[in-house]
Amino acid sequence: MNQVIRLYQFPISPFCRKVRLVLAEKRLQVEEITERYWEGAPEFLKLNPAGTVPVLKIGSHVLAESNAICEYLDESIPDPPLLPGNAMARAEARRLVGWFDDRFFREVTRNLVGERLLKKIICGGQPESAKIKSGSRNCRIHIDYIAGLLERRRWLAGDQMTLADFAAAAQISCLDYVSDIDWERSDAVKDWYAKIKSRPAFRSILRDNLPGFPPPYHYSDLDF
Amino acid sequence: MNQVIRLYQFPISPFCRKVRLVLAEKRLQVEEITERYWEGAPEFLKLNPAGTVPVLKIGSHVLAESNAICEYLDESIPDPPLLPGNAMARAEARRLVGWFDDRFFREVTRNLVGERLLKKIICGGQPESAKIKSGSRNCRIHIDYIAGLLERRRWLAGDQMTLADFAAAAQISCLDYVSDIDWERSDAVKDWYAKIKSRPAFRSILRDNLPGFPPPYHYSDLDF
Repeated sequence: MNQVIRLYQFPISPFCRKVRLVLAEKRLQVEEITERYWEGAPEFLKLNPAGTVPVLKIGSHVLAESNAICEYLDESIPDPPLLPGNAMARAEARRLVGWFDDRFFREVTRNLVGERLLKKIICGGQPESAKIKSGSRNCRIHIDYIAGLLERRRWLAGDQMTLADFAAAAQISCLDYVSDIDWERSDAVKDWYAKIKSRPAFRSILRDNLPGFPPPYHYSDLDF
Repeated sequence: MNQVIRLYQFPISPFCRKVRLVLAEKRLQVEEITERYWEGAPEFLKLNPAGTVPVLKIGSHVLAESNAICEYLDESIPDPPLLPGNAMARAEARRLVGWFDDRFFREVTRNLVGERLLKKIICGGQPESAKIKSGSRNCRIHIDYIAGLLERRRWLAGDQMTLADFAAAAQISCLDYVSDIDWERSDAVKDWYAKIKSRPAFRSILRDNLPGFPPPYHYSDLDF
C-alpha cells in the first residue's frame, strides 16, 4: 500500500484500538487524526454517515466499521495472518471478535470507561454508580471466561494470535486506562495480556494520554 | 457438507433470518430448532455461553455469532458467492452488514419489533410509546438511506447481491411482520425488497407464523 493512510479515531475507543493494533501489526504507516465523533462534524459525517470511529481513508477510498476494516487489512496484507487458515477456526476467531465487540463492550467497557471517562469528556457528566457496579461485576465474569479459554489455548481463539486477541486486548486496555482491571484475578489472563502488551504493535496505545485524564503508572508498564 | 446441520433460532430474530437466508441461498438442508434463548436453558448455554441465537451445529462443531456463521458458510460453499471478489468491495459489503446488524437493529428493529412483539412473548409486557415513536422516526431515516444507496447501485453494496442485502432484508422482514414498513415511502426500496423477497431462499421466512401473533396478509404476498 503506497497510498496515504489516514485513521480517524478517538484514543479511548476500543474499536479504534483494535484497528490500530492491526495496522501496526501489518507495519503500515498511518496518520492518526483525533475525531470528536459525537460532535457530528459535517465533513466527518460525509466520510461515515454512521458518525462512528474508526474510519480509515486509503487514498480516496473510505472504509468504516471496525470489522470491515480489520478484514480488509488482513486480506490485503496477508503477513502476518490474523485469522487462522482453517474455516472452522476462523469462525471461532470471528465468534470471539463478536463476543468482545458486542457483549464485552456492552456489559463492561461502556459501563466503566463510558461512565468514568467518555461521559466527562463529552458533557462533563458524573458516572452513575449503578452502571459502575454492574460493569465491575460483569468484568469479573468476563475475566473468568477469558481465563477458561486460556486453560486450553495459547491465544484466545486457538494456538495462533488472531483478531480475537486484538478485539479483547483493545477492550481490556481501555479498562486498564481507568484502572478497572483486577490483575490479581487470573494469572493466565495477566500472562496473556503481558504477552500482547509487549508487542511493538501495542506501543502507540500505551502512549495514549488524554489531556486532563492521564493513565495510571502501571498502564504503560510492561512489568505491571 | 454431508453432516447434519442444526440451526437454533427464533423466528422473529433478524440475526437468525440473515443466517437462514444464507443457508437457503447455499441450498443447505437444515433442521431448524426454535430456541427461547432468553430462558437460558443450561444445554443451550453449553452450546453458546453468550446465550444468543443463532447457533449453528454442523456435526459436532458449534458456531455462534451471525457474522462468524455467514462468513463461514460463504467460505465453505462458494456458490453462489455472497461477498464480492474485490477486497475494497467486500469492505463496503461488510460495512453495510455492520450498519444493519448494529445501527439499524438498535435504532429501529429493537424499538419496534422488540416492543410490539418480543416483549409480549417474553413477559407479556406492553410497548413503550416513546420507543415506538423513536423507532418509527428512525425507520423513515433508514429507508431514505437505503433509497440513497439504490440510486447508484442495483444491490445495496454494489451491482452484486451480497450479505449486506440479506442483513438488511432480515431486519426489514421482521418490521414487515408487525406492519412497520411504509412501502409508499420509496419505490426503489420497495422494488429492491420485492426482488429479494421473491427469491426461493426467502420462502421459509415468509412462512413464519408465531402462535398468537399472525403476520398481516401482505407479509407473505410477493405482490405487496
